[in-house]
Amino acid sequence: MTLVVQKYGGSSVADAERIKRVAERIVSARKAGDDVAVVVSAMGDTTDDLLDLAHQVSPLPPGRELDMLLTSGERISMALLAMAIHNLGYEARSFTGSQAGVITTSSHGKARIIDVTPGRLQSAIDEGAVAILAGFQGIAQDTKDITTLGRGGSDTTAVALAAAMHADQCEIYTDVDGVFTADPRIVPTAHKLDTVTYEEMLELAASGAKVLHLRAVEYARRFNMPIHVRSSYSTKPGTIVAGSMEDLPVEQALISGVAHDRSEAKITVLSVPDEPGRAAKIFQVVTDAEINIDMIVQNVSTKATGRTDISFTLPKTDGAAAMTALQKTRDEIGFEGLLFDDHIGKVSLVGAGMRSNPGVAATFFRALSEAGVNIEMISTSEIRVSVVCRDTDLDEAVRALHEAFDLGGDEEAVVYAGTGR
Amino acid sequence: MTLVVQKYGGSSVADAERIKRVAERIVSARKAGDDVAVVVSAMGDTTDDLLDLAHQVSPLPPGRELDMLLTSGERISMALLAMAIHNLGYEARSFTGSQAGVITTSSHGKARIIDVTPGRLQSAIDEGAVAILAGFQGIAQDTKDITTLGRGGSDTTAVALAAAMHADQCEIYTDVDGVFTADPRIVPTAHKLDTVTYEEMLELAASGAKVLHLRAVEYARRFNMPIHVRSSYSTKPGTIVAGSMEDLPVEQALISGVAHDRSEAKITVLSVPDEPGRAAKIFQVVTDAEINIDMIVQNVSTKATGRTDISFTLPKTDGAAAMTALQKTRDEIGFEGLLFDDHIGKVSLVGAGMRSNPGVAATFFRALSEAGVNIEMISTSEIRVSVVCRDTDLDEAVRALHEAFDLGGDEEAVVYAGTGR
Repeated sequence: MTLVVQKYGGSSVADAERIKRVAERIVSARKAGDDVAVVVSAMGDTTDDLLDLAHQVSPLPPGRELDMLLTSGERISMALLAMAIHNLGYEARSFTGSQAGVITTSSHGKARIIDVTPGRLQSAIDEGAVAILAGFQGIAQDTKDITTLGRGGSDTTAVALAAAMHADQCEIYTDVDGVFTADPRIVPTAHKLDTVTYEEMLELAASGAKVLHLRAVEYARRFNMPIHVRSSYSTKPGTIVAGSMEDLPVEQALISGVAHDRSEAKITVLSVPDEPGRAAKIFQVVTDAEINIDMIVQNVSTKATGRTDISFTLPKTDGAAAMTALQKTRDEIGFEGLLFDDHIGKVSLVGAGMRSNPGVAATFFRALSEAGVNIEMISTSEIRVSVVCRDTDLDEAVRALHEAFDLGGDEEAVVYAGTGR
Repeated sequence: MTLVVQKYGGSSVADAERIKRVAERIVSARKAGDDVAVVVSAMGDTTDDLLDLAHQVSPLPPGRELDMLLTSGERISMALLAMAIHNLGYEARSFTGSQAGVITTSSHGKARIIDVTPGRLQSAIDEGAVAILAGFQGIAQDTKDITTLGRGGSDTTAVALAAAMHADQCEIYTDVDGVFTADPRIVPTAHKLDTVTYEEMLELAASGAKVLHLRAVEYARRFNMPIHVRSSYSTKPGTIVAGSMEDLPVEQALISGVAHDRSEAKITVLSVPDEPGRAAKIFQVVTDAEINIDMIVQNVSTKATGRTDISFTLPKTDGAAAMTALQKTRDEIGFEGLLFDDHIGKVSLVGAGMRSNPGVAATFFRALSEAGVNIEMISTSEIRVSVVCRDTDLDEAVRALHEAFDLGGDEEAVVYAGTGR
């Protein structure tokens, strides 16, 4: 018997009609003879609606209670999905993260999965039922309080469940057909990838591709659990995320795709004394505020003044917190001012083949130069090149790189509205 | 240290503003030096909205999943309430029925509480926090599945929690000022009772008074846990439900109040052969359909035919099910037809003093007669007289009895919209 884990995002279960359609898809897998465990997100905008309610009663709600509140979202969708499956003549049982043994750290709002002990789900499946698990949530190992995994947590739940149950497949259903060479809304000739390695998918996810959450891919790589990313609106095969780039054949395509990210902002710290420890102090202040820094540029210091400018990028949503934290240390660090710029964009080229091909960088920068895109910051990894540019240049930069590396396909890309979590 | 259990119904926490007001009331109890455990219902119409959703995906949702769905309602309200308390500078922790050890039978939708083991709530209180418990829900002792207690379940949760924690007080906050001598919307001179015994409250609740749920009163009597029924919109004292009528002084008021009920219907089984076992068979059929019968009247059989009519009352909502079940046994029982009448009303007079005062019945029937109310059925207990009449006569019957027994007060009655569960 094949065991399939299927994960459906919030847009796939946004209303009663869509829930019924998902139930039909699950039942057709059962009819084909598969055992099925399902991970489901909250319906459509439920999470945002609940957050609104929370902020109506408290500007700074405690994390424990926020997690208690938000986890009601999956409770609703999973129970409705079980009813819809039941209505099609199949047995289904829903389980909360706590009931299903999703053990996490106690860091509310961004807990990490420690272990999954899905005994009750296994029993349900052994008795012929579809087992449904609430995504995005778990129970803290030490406090026994309810936790959430943060945005994208349902993908991670699905991969962790598939690994714990030794599933044969982990299917992530979403509102696009799979992983594309670029965002089809920007590049109409973008085409779907049939396969992509864990490493490439990690770089794509970290560079702004929203189709899979970074942590889910990390989890999949750790447990060597292949993910099938596919559309919940069609039965076409999607993209298989599997395998290490070490195992790739030599003739593997050079480049997998172009990712872009509009969610970052840039902070420039002006005229910092160019002495050991000053830069470190700046980044310590930001890190202490629990803010992730992405890219960093330090200008060459002018000998006359012995001072330098330091720029770094961070999530836009953390901008205010970082500015406040830095402002407080102005005298201590001795900088002259702070600039905040939220009109930047980041474009990244990702491909396992890039390791052994030194020509990639040259083509990359020539393409951007010919497109008139001014580069503000650069960062690279073994299989990725990223640059920061003006946000108004971002679409053109994506198109230019997609064209320069000949990533276009014949297949027409299909894009649907909405995002899951 | 005094421990107070407070229960707030759905209308008291219907939106963010009301939740904040409830939080202020809880905090003022904390400031007065009391330890507080709170039981809360789902916000306003949440339960009905969730039921609507359920019926959109399935006409007959399985009970296990319906309970999973509905329990998300209290999860939302209790988390929001904890946040609102937190925002006022006090610690608060919310717990589901399962987390709080509310152990029940496994009868989904109408589970009964077997035991409450509130260790986590006690710890929270010992650490200085307000402990908040989701009303209406628990965990099945055998299956470990989530259960609900049915309508009115939050009252029962509150009383059970108060008993398990040996609380000094159990306050049920509602949208009226307490228990009244009659519904003030019908009788403007109705006045609030300061105290009422468990037995009288049981009879009032069973006769249609909605202020407290029957099962909660049964629980309170069993554990001798006094209940203070009071308004969540004022700080005036409400009604204390406590004590047995055995302990009442002789000069205790004869009559506590007049209750009425529009929720019942009457079924008449026509021309039943007047032989032993036929009536029993009728009631067996109805009972097998899990329908509660209230009052029964069997007409005197006419000797000529050897047949008789049997009438009984039942909840209107069970009318269709009862008619279907009876129709199937028509040939077996040998009756000639069925009549369904949902235009009846029931009025009841309740008072512990009635036991030792034979004049009550005479006054009761004279008052109804003078008011021109035609009596269709009669039932009595030691401390109650109930009659069924036309629903159009019901208000007049309530007023006539209230007047005849001189129950009017000087205090003006206050009525608010909405009901809890």
